[in-house]
Amino acid sequence: MTRLTLYELAGADRALRFSPHCWKTRMALAHKGLEADRIPCWFTEKALIAFSGQTLVPILVDGTESVHDSWHIALHLERHFPDRPTLFAAAAVPLTHFVNRWADTVLVPALARIILQDIYRLLAPVDQPYFRQTREQRFGQRLEEVVADRAGHIADFRKTLAPLRQTLALQPFLAGDAPAYADYCVFGMFMWARCVSTADLLEDSDPVFAWRERLLDAFDGMARFAPSVPAAPDMG
Amino acid sequence: MTRLTLYELAGADRALRFSPHCWKTRMALAHKGLEADRIPCWFTEKALIAFSGQTLVPILVDGTESVHDSWHIALHLERHFPDRPTLFAAAAVPLTHFVNRWADTVLVPALARIILQDIYRLLAPVDQPYFRQTREQRFGQRLEEVVADRAGHIADFRKTLAPLRQTLALQPFLAGDAPAYADYCVFGMFMWARCVSTADLLEDSDPVFAWRERLLDAFDGMARFAPSVPAAPDMG
Repeated sequence: MTRLTLYELAGADRALRFSPHCWKTRMALAHKGLEADRIPCWFTEKALIAFSGQTLVPILVDGTESVHDSWHIALHLERHFPDRPTLFAAAAVPLTHFVNRWADTVLVPALARIILQDIYRLLAPVDQPYFRQTREQRFGQRLEEVVADRAGHIADFRKTLAPLRQTLALQPFLAGDAPAYADYCVFGMFMWARCVSTADLLEDSDPVFAWRERLLDAFDGMARFAPSVPAAPDMG
Repeated sequence: MTRLTLYELAGADRALRFSPHCWKTRMALAHKGLEADRIPCWFTEKALIAFSGQTLVPILVDGTESVHDSWHIALHLERHFPDRPTLFAAAAVPLTHFVNRWADTVLVPALARIILQDIYRLLAPVDQPYFRQTREQRFGQRLEEVVADRAGHIADFRKTLAPLRQTLALQPFLAGDAPAYADYCVFGMFMWARCVSTADLLEDSDPVFAWRERLLDAFDGMARFAPSVPAAPDMG
């Protein structure tokens, strides 16, 4: 086996290796049962890693190949040491569970601050007092106050999408090349908003926008053609 | 095949089915190529679903079995219709990618607000001006200001852990029964903090605490025994 070398960020005490991304790689190496020479590197010691053509650690040197970015190192280890324990166990159900919890704990409250009053308006009259009471208790504010700063809440919502956006910039669906339940967990949030509100949640250039379009078109446009609140009449 | 019935939340116009969780289930049914009778249900029409023994939709009735909670419905569909397209494709790599983006975009900045000055103190003197300048530019504040409200930032950090916490309350690792790279992506963040700071990030009762303990012990305690900042001397 070729010798592995890992360049790691270090403190003044070079034994102190604190970078979170280097720790991802150390755990990945341990998981695979691999040893590496570990070279400490201060922030300003860019000359030490200049050979790699870039400026950030971790960098793994595997024979003649140098791999940077902890994610690419993980993929490299998985590809080059397939007989060692996999870093990507049959974990689709547990990881989908995490995505589902993310959608429910992060996206639901962030979207609620945008669409709560839109929902209220569309409810059966008999449901409205129930909805107002339970939601005002949850938010500790009147419905009208919860949604008062729509532009600000939309901006906040877009920020919460960062991990989704960065993932979808590199793969067409959360679950990879084709959609699966992880995608639907998140897409359900967008359908909630689409059914009740005309708020512009996404910029056209957002990778999340293109992903949402793909899912609106799935299953013969089932979601796209589902009943939703009518758009405001054209005032032109 | 038994007939499937899905109880869905509806607006005053009963055609308007807006619940995000019901949408998860609709997409899951479509993915499996399954049809269901879809029964609209207002918030206050609890009597309609009293048969199920609980009060929230979606509820899927499959023969004599009634399943509630969109997550359990997805697992039920996967188990009972294994010959249909899987809802949990071989998606471990793409989903791990999402977890990694979540750790980097959410946990890194939340932790930085707690430990940035701790890191600064441990850096080689030659690294300190570089670190201060790049981080102050990133945060638009002096280091001392970024970390000024430690108690508040720790409280915020604990809130950002909600999806992790809820997942780990039901499974020992993010990747399921055994750790995999998804766990290391997140654990790396905790090692970052542990190496440089004595801040109490987690309550002992937090499922995230127990998970962190398990990973500190992994690989013969590799992470637990890694060099880290000394605890403050005992003043007793």
